[in-house]
Amino acid sequence: MNTKVYAAFNETDALGPHTIERRQLSPKDIFIDIEYCGVCHSDIHTAKGDWGKPNYPVVPGHEIIGRVKEIGSEVTKFKVGDLVGVGCMVESCQHCHSCDEGLEQYCENGFTGTYNSKNSKYGGVTYGGYSENVVVEEDFVLHVPENIDVKAAAPLLCAGITTWSPLRHWKVKAGDKVGVIGLGGLGHMGVKFAKAMGAHVVMITTSESKGEDAKKLGADEVLISKDADQMKAHQNTFDFLLNTIPVKHDVNPYLALLKLDKTMCMVGAIEPLDAVHGGLLIMKRRNLAGSLIGGIKETQEMLDFCGEHNIVSDIEMIDIQNINTAYERMMKSDVKYRFVIDIKSLKES
Amino acid sequence: MNTKVYAAFNETDALGPHTIERRQLSPKDIFIDIEYCGVCHSDIHTAKGDWGKPNYPVVPGHEIIGRVKEIGSEVTKFKVGDLVGVGCMVESCQHCHSCDEGLEQYCENGFTGTYNSKNSKYGGVTYGGYSENVVVEEDFVLHVPENIDVKAAAPLLCAGITTWSPLRHWKVKAGDKVGVIGLGGLGHMGVKFAKAMGAHVVMITTSESKGEDAKKLGADEVLISKDADQMKAHQNTFDFLLNTIPVKHDVNPYLALLKLDKTMCMVGAIEPLDAVHGGLLIMKRRNLAGSLIGGIKETQEMLDFCGEHNIVSDIEMIDIQNINTAYERMMKSDVKYRFVIDIKSLKES
Repeated sequence: MNTKVYAAFNETDALGPHTIERRQLSPKDIFIDIEYCGVCHSDIHTAKGDWGKPNYPVVPGHEIIGRVKEIGSEVTKFKVGDLVGVGCMVESCQHCHSCDEGLEQYCENGFTGTYNSKNSKYGGVTYGGYSENVVVEEDFVLHVPENIDVKAAAPLLCAGITTWSPLRHWKVKAGDKVGVIGLGGLGHMGVKFAKAMGAHVVMITTSESKGEDAKKLGADEVLISKDADQMKAHQNTFDFLLNTIPVKHDVNPYLALLKLDKTMCMVGAIEPLDAVHGGLLIMKRRNLAGSLIGGIKETQEMLDFCGEHNIVSDIEMIDIQNINTAYERMMKSDVKYRFVIDIKSLKES
Repeated sequence: MNTKVYAAFNETDALGPHTIERRQLSPKDIFIDIEYCGVCHSDIHTAKGDWGKPNYPVVPGHEIIGRVKEIGSEVTKFKVGDLVGVGCMVESCQHCHSCDEGLEQYCENGFTGTYNSKNSKYGGVTYGGYSENVVVEEDFVLHVPENIDVKAAAPLLCAGITTWSPLRHWKVKAGDKVGVIGLGGLGHMGVKFAKAMGAHVVMITTSESKGEDAKKLGADEVLISKDADQMKAHQNTFDFLLNTIPVKHDVNPYLALLKLDKTMCMVGAIEPLDAVHGGLLIMKRRNLAGSLIGGIKETQEMLDFCGEHNIVSDIEMIDIQNINTAYERMMKSDVKYRFVIDIKSLKES
């Protein structure tokens, strides 16, 4: 069926209105009437071709919240009217070792992204959540708790799970000293989750004002990374570091903060880092690792946890017509901490 | 007492004969009559001041094999005549968390190196194994099995434990596909140990001839790292990588070889590595780690394992008078795989 969307048509122009065709429902499909869609930095990178030439037109958006409007004949986990979410993935092979383990994000045959991915099963290219609706197989649809602020739940589907997954994988627990490096869409969720897990949370930032903001979000302490004395005082004291800095940077001063055998996990910088000093790894058996979003099962666990602990993102609502201004502000890090599109503005346009 | 040694006196001149004073035995001390001493790259780096200005004269040597000649009044674990070894450490605080865990190499208060370390307990500077004898507290002395080739056991105390410890820490087991990167003093022990642990061992090297040598040492397969097709064919297939390359290099092609969640451990390059690509960590939740020698308890376990499996190093014996030529050859990687000094040549000089 014809669906109203907002799309990028090339690397340089602004996003604009467009119409795409959504597929007819297969037996396992769910038709979702979209209500809100978060705006992720990946949307900008993809739209602008930073990660390679995309399949234009690109319809971004992988932080989708909506309600089930229709279900395929074999759908068992959802019913019409359910509040649901869709994150970064809409398909995977579902038979490799990673998929069997519930780690679809590491599918050995490659998962299908929610937008700008070739869809080997249904043909064509996937179109994301800057859209009136979306059709997704039920295995990649999440239940969203009804008790939380629905619009502020959208960023949980990407920024949320991207920080939740490594905190769980590296078994952050009550009493651990956890550093969250960088305060943006990812970092602010890292602070909220680590705090809710009972950790002693240290916001590590270059900016005093971001430090103050982080305290309001729940951080116990602030470490100003450009202050050499402060950094030295915290050396060898952290149980886990979640590094959300989205660009190339020098990781060595952060590695030095870790205790013996502990890990710094990168979730932002999908690019070459500055030279890592081998001695920082060797002398304390430290680990430098990375983590990509999260699997479907753990995404559901995160959403359930958010329901129990009343955790959502801090957001600014926008109409779809303001998406280009939002991109400009995001490129200046001028958002606390995630833009969310009210899809009503698209439907009524 | 006066002891004959070979020492470096400055950054540039050759090593030469010298006399040092060994301390009188304290109640916990063991006096060891040295028979053999392995020659480690660290000896050269320290003697030449590559790691900062040393305390000249430097008496290198931390792969020491000898026999107990005398024991202090409170020594309980050794008796006169025992075949013993001393590795890279001669003291640690023995009360921090790391020491309590048997990880003296990560002592929070800093271990005392076998040579060129300030000795906070007994005063002065430590002098290593290019010497007729050495005095060491019993807690840092190892039992060496009598059934193995004694002179070839010397390099186990550094090259051996440095490769053994990470293979154990990251739980290499039968059937794992383990890559050993680089074939030198460390790499050749990595191959032997991984093979003895039941792993499928792949020698990863730039050199066809080193590949052939590695097969003779027990490697099941050879991967020529400059062959892009071979490297691609092995992508995402390794359970563990032991990286023994001793200098700055590009680790990214190796990281790409690791399966999901697996680790490459650096044991050689205590210096800045080339830029690590964050995407290689993030996309497969891979780990880049490091490891430093090993604790006393696990060093003893390794030596016992070597006794059971008849594992020693491949060595070239030299007289102490040829140490400078040996250094020159080592700097050209011209040794298979470790020089060991016959200390008789020092005693009889």
